[in-house]
Amino acid sequence: MVDPRQYLFPLILFLFQIVFTFLLGFHSEYKYFPVSNVTDYESPSRGLVEFYYAMFTDIHVMMFIGFGFLMTFLRRYSFSSVGFNFILCAFTLEWAIILRGYLFDWDSTTQKFIVDVQSLATADFVSASILISMGALLGKVNSVQLIVMSFIEVPIQVVNEWIGLHLFCGFDPGESMYVHVFGAYFGLAVTFVLFRSDFLDSPLEKSRYTSDLFAMIGSIFLFCFWPSFNAGVTTGSDRIHAVTNTYISICASVIGAFLMSSLLKKSKFDMVHVQNSTLAGGVAVGTVAGSNIGLHGAMVIGTLAGMISVLGYNFLSPRLPNIRIHDTCGVNNLHGMPGLMAGITGIIVASIGDRSGFSKHLTDTCRGGGKSRDSSTQSGFQAAALGLTLGMAIVGGLIAGMILRLPIFAQKGKDFDDEENWHLPENESKEDITRGITMARTAL
Amino acid sequence: MVDPRQYLFPLILFLFQIVFTFLLGFHSEYKYFPVSNVTDYESPSRGLVEFYYAMFTDIHVMMFIGFGFLMTFLRRYSFSSVGFNFILCAFTLEWAIILRGYLFDWDSTTQKFIVDVQSLATADFVSASILISMGALLGKVNSVQLIVMSFIEVPIQVVNEWIGLHLFCGFDPGESMYVHVFGAYFGLAVTFVLFRSDFLDSPLEKSRYTSDLFAMIGSIFLFCFWPSFNAGVTTGSDRIHAVTNTYISICASVIGAFLMSSLLKKSKFDMVHVQNSTLAGGVAVGTVAGSNIGLHGAMVIGTLAGMISVLGYNFLSPRLPNIRIHDTCGVNNLHGMPGLMAGITGIIVASIGDRSGFSKHLTDTCRGGGKSRDSSTQSGFQAAALGLTLGMAIVGGLIAGMILRLPIFAQKGKDFDDEENWHLPENESKEDITRGITMARTAL
Amino acid sequence: MVDPRQYLFPLILFLFQIVFTFLLGFHSEYKYFPVSNVTDYESPSRGLVEFYYAMFTDIHVMMFIGFGFLMTFLRRYSFSSVGFNFILCAFTLEWAIILRGYLFDWDSTTQKFIVDVQSLATADFVSASILISMGALLGKVNSVQLIVMSFIEVPIQVVNEWIGLHLFCGFDPGESMYVHVFGAYFGLAVTFVLFRSDFLDSPLEKSRYTSDLFAMIGSIFLFCFWPSFNAGVTTGSDRIHAVTNTYISICASVIGAFLMSSLLKKSKFDMVHVQNSTLAGGVAVGTVAGSNIGLHGAMVIGTLAGMISVLGYNFLSPRLPNIRIHDTCGVNNLHGMPGLMAGITGIIVASIGDRSGFSKHLTDTCRGGGKSRDSSTQSGFQAAALGLTLGMAIVGGLIAGMILRLPIFAQKGKDFDDEENWHLPENESKEDITRGITMARTAL
Repeated sequence: MVDPRQYLFPLILFLFQIVFTFLLGFHSEYKYFPVSNVTDYESPSRGLVEFYYAMFTDIHVMMFIGFGFLMTFLRRYSFSSVGFNFILCAFTLEWAIILRGYLFDWDSTTQKFIVDVQSLATADFVSASILISMGALLGKVNSVQLIVMSFIEVPIQVVNEWIGLHLFCGFDPGESMYVHVFGAYFGLAVTFVLFRSDFLDSPLEKSRYTSDLFAMIGSIFLFCFWPSFNAGVTTGSDRIHAVTNTYISICASVIGAFLMSSLLKKSKFDMVHVQNSTLAGGVAVGTVAGSNIGLHGAMVIGTLAGMISVLGYNFLSPRLPNIRIHDTCGVNNLHGMPGLMAGITGIIVASIGDRSGFSKHLTDTCRGGGKSRDSSTQSGFQAAALGLTLGMAIVGGLIAGMILRLPIFAQKGKDFDDEENWHLPENESKEDITRGITMARTAL
Repeated sequence: MVDPRQYLFPLILFLFQIVFTFLLGFHSEYKYFPVSNVTDYESPSRGLVEFYYAMFTDIHVMMFIGFGFLMTFLRRYSFSSVGFNFILCAFTLEWAIILRGYLFDWDSTTQKFIVDVQSLATADFVSASILISMGALLGKVNSVQLIVMSFIEVPIQVVNEWIGLHLFCGFDPGESMYVHVFGAYFGLAVTFVLFRSDFLDSPLEKSRYTSDLFAMIGSIFLFCFWPSFNAGVTTGSDRIHAVTNTYISICASVIGAFLMSSLLKKSKFDMVHVQNSTLAGGVAVGTVAGSNIGLHGAMVIGTLAGMISVLGYNFLSPRLPNIRIHDTCGVNNLHGMPGLMAGITGIIVASIGDRSGFSKHLTDTCRGGGKSRDSSTQSGFQAAALGLTLGMAIVGGLIAGMILRLPIFAQKGKDFDDEENWHLPENESKEDITRGITMARTAL
Repeated sequence: MVDPRQYLFPLILFLFQIVFTFLLGFHSEYKYFPVSNVTDYESPSRGLVEFYYAMFTDIHVMMFIGFGFLMTFLRRYSFSSVGFNFILCAFTLEWAIILRGYLFDWDSTTQKFIVDVQSLATADFVSASILISMGALLGKVNSVQLIVMSFIEVPIQVVNEWIGLHLFCGFDPGESMYVHVFGAYFGLAVTFVLFRSDFLDSPLEKSRYTSDLFAMIGSIFLFCFWPSFNAGVTTGSDRIHAVTNTYISICASVIGAFLMSSLLKKSKFDMVHVQNSTLAGGVAVGTVAGSNIGLHGAMVIGTLAGMISVLGYNFLSPRLPNIRIHDTCGVNNLHGMPGLMAGITGIIVASIGDRSGFSKHLTDTCRGGGKSRDSSTQSGFQAAALGLTLGMAIVGGLIAGMILRLPIFAQKGKDFDDEENWHLPENESKEDITRGITMARTAL
């Protein structure tokens, strides 16, 4: 008898496509730029393709190549890593464009939300959250669970960011709180609910030589394009700050990660650190990337982030299962703790006069003083934004986890194994083994 | 005795380099932009590097990384895939710059053709045609045959596009007709002529785990940069349309491809679909990418394209050998049918008032009314452009196939095998097998 | 007992991070652009992010993905190739930003050096030098030696380029002399000093099928983005020259490399040539990339460079050990000889009136006539710049080599082997072999 659940994946996707199509049809419109604004790079028209496009494509590559290949490190789960990343990200982008449209980009005159290159880039930011959560769950959930998780996580992420940006006015150009902290702790909360002791000690939860090299493709593209991520929606002087601070901070975290890896691993290096902790400086500088923190500030942040991330992989990750958390990719070390670091840095920098440049971004919607907020109030609201994000992520993740555990969605079969999800090509080594046996027979 | 044909490849290339050098020397000139035009992004100067450059490099990466790695999926033909793609594309770019220069960019004052960033990008478009044709032939032709095919195919593609754009004024910003339809059916016509029954059931015409992962690199870069392809030579409002429509449509085809793959393959996925059909939305929206079709229009086009492409791989491809067509990469499913879909969509959209925005692009050279063409005339000429392209591609491909079958060019040796073309490194598994035997001996 | 040298790597990096942080803190400042300059693309403000950013990210990818993966071709040294490239490049960028800041970008008013996107891009150029030198040494030095080499090489490179550009005013927009010639001969001089006869005939100094494919990723990204490298800091008409000349020249070197490879290797191709010599046209056109050499000039330069580079790999590389030079990646063939070719081309082109466009770049600091230099003087100073670069590289490399040979830094253990430097994942084939033995036992 046919298990009806095998039609769940196509059915869900098909229904969502229909709903999304109608929503876009009723409520979206292209945003074309007024030509007269073209020279104003200080506050360019939202529709100016040329101002945003180069950074947008970099961010797009980070989502699909960066996250997709970074997760291929598992020895027999590379197809699922890059493939599920592909479908999950595409689904999330559609859903995020719509929800962010209603919440962030609603044009009350036309009763439609605008779509431009900036919308495409911010949808990519939302998808980063969801892909980070996927990193915590990698190998332990099926494709239906991932789609359902995205369906639940996107609205929570969008609402959290909207409150954080429009009411708390918590400054976060590189989205370290709203994307990295959110995605990491949402995912960890989900994996807490789904925890099973047989996640541990799976012989398949390891890398191999080639899968580690594929992962490096993802890692290095993330590294190279991180300045575009942190500067992607900035303008004016924030932009040059964001580009240079991120460049320096992420280089510094490469140094921090390698030196700590060498120290802990007796003069050898560990690929997990090189693939992940090297990037922690991009996360840790995100909240203050657009601020005048000085390049020495970026150096300190990046170096510490790289070192802390390696310490996390080495000492913290092996102990997390004690509190029912199994974090496949170590998102706590790459996104969680460096994101918290960014949030705390944001609180500190906001408290120092207008060093963070926050006052440029205040509007009448901001609680606690509106445009005339002082720096200590700003500092408090940065803390509130961080706290809210942590709370929303953890509560949201627990709820999502309980939904994903429902029998209709729950995973069957082996973890960390592509066999569950793919029609695999014949393994090369089988034919070699056969030839080996033949040769061995002849030889004997 | 030495077979003189072994010198054919270097000889042909050397002669072409000499001829091309003289043609460039006599008739090419750089196009430098007049500075006063710099702010006019509505109709920027052709020579404005900054307007075109970011999209151009994306397109360049699509040709060399995208197509090159997408074709590495064969288990023992990856060197040839990426290597032949490399030489064939470089050769085609040179040839295309010259021919497009004479036909499209001739400056009658200086008696020279101009070369600027837009020329470089459109040469890349021509090469896409030739690389698509190569996809149909992959593993069955040698390097000489590929160069000769390009030499024949480029002028036919350029003339076809010139008639289509300058006389028929068939609108096609993403080149779905002039590049995708043309390249696919040209290649299929060649493979029809070269058909041999031993193409079928070759044990080497399969992928393996790592070759499928290498192919995903190509696939995902094509995905990420497709908005640049479809918007690469557009300006003004067409550009924001092309970017957003393509982004949505190609995301939708990821959804369409995954859902159909899951449906047909009993809840598992097939890498062939994931590598190829996911991209069909980029092709299928090409002709109307610059038009005001609404994002819901892009959703519908993309979703259908992804689904149709998977259906093609599943039901059509296995039956094509019955009519003497062996399509190695399934270009009919990724470029052919989605390209036809784009052409037909173009006919329909052109018929609806000026929704396609075609009237902006009409000039005095357009047959059937020139600048004052109405929408039903435009619709008719869109159909004419599609029909012409199909005809030119098929007839051109049949002629090219007959030339490639001449004994001087014809392939010797095994299909789908790098051994024919490369000095291969020692196979890793041989040493492992030897060690295996030694260990087996000791153990026994 | 613990060998204290195992702490050398983290200790050195930690100390450098502290020193660099203080230097940046005391003497660096962001460069923000004055908005009024935004439309002047002829001589844009240094701080204009939008003018430089797209090319900068391309260059950044060339350093980390391009060089990093190009060097993964060795069968058991791919982790070290991409990993050491990562840490070495990150370290070099920090060091280069500081040193170039003091020498090139000092603002005497604020007593600080400016940092903007152009600084980031030129730091990447410096790192190219160091990564080229690493290519000569690949597999034969440890990570400490690489960091120490960079510490020594960066100041020599920066001083050499400063003299070349500011006193000699030797024109070199694509940095073929100051980066490629310098890096190659510095590295070759180091390997001369470190030469040991057991470098030769190592069974590990070979590629394998997948490592050759990983190397192609690096190679093709270098190919695609080379126009950005050569045009990265140009403005005005130099920029369109640099983009188009490089595009044509590097395509031509693909043709030259394939035809010569086929000729020498009896109608088969060699991956070493395809990975490396195809790029020689990008190097060889660098010095005159911004000049009006005509596209036919670029064709001739590129074709010859590709051919010469293959000849170098085939005839010269195997003979270099006779003079105590072991060049792992063949940097002499890809960077050394094509760089010399570029330098010589620069001398010739400078002598022909103002075809090179050199006069635009002359200032009062230029020796031998300042702004009123004539073309034969310019030609002489181009030669002087080339000679100086060669001298500084070779002398600097010999000194660096002697320092690297000090017992405290010297390498222990096996060459060309990742085991020395990494905690490797269990080899896949071991488990297969075990299964093979089991199956063989059962079968027998």
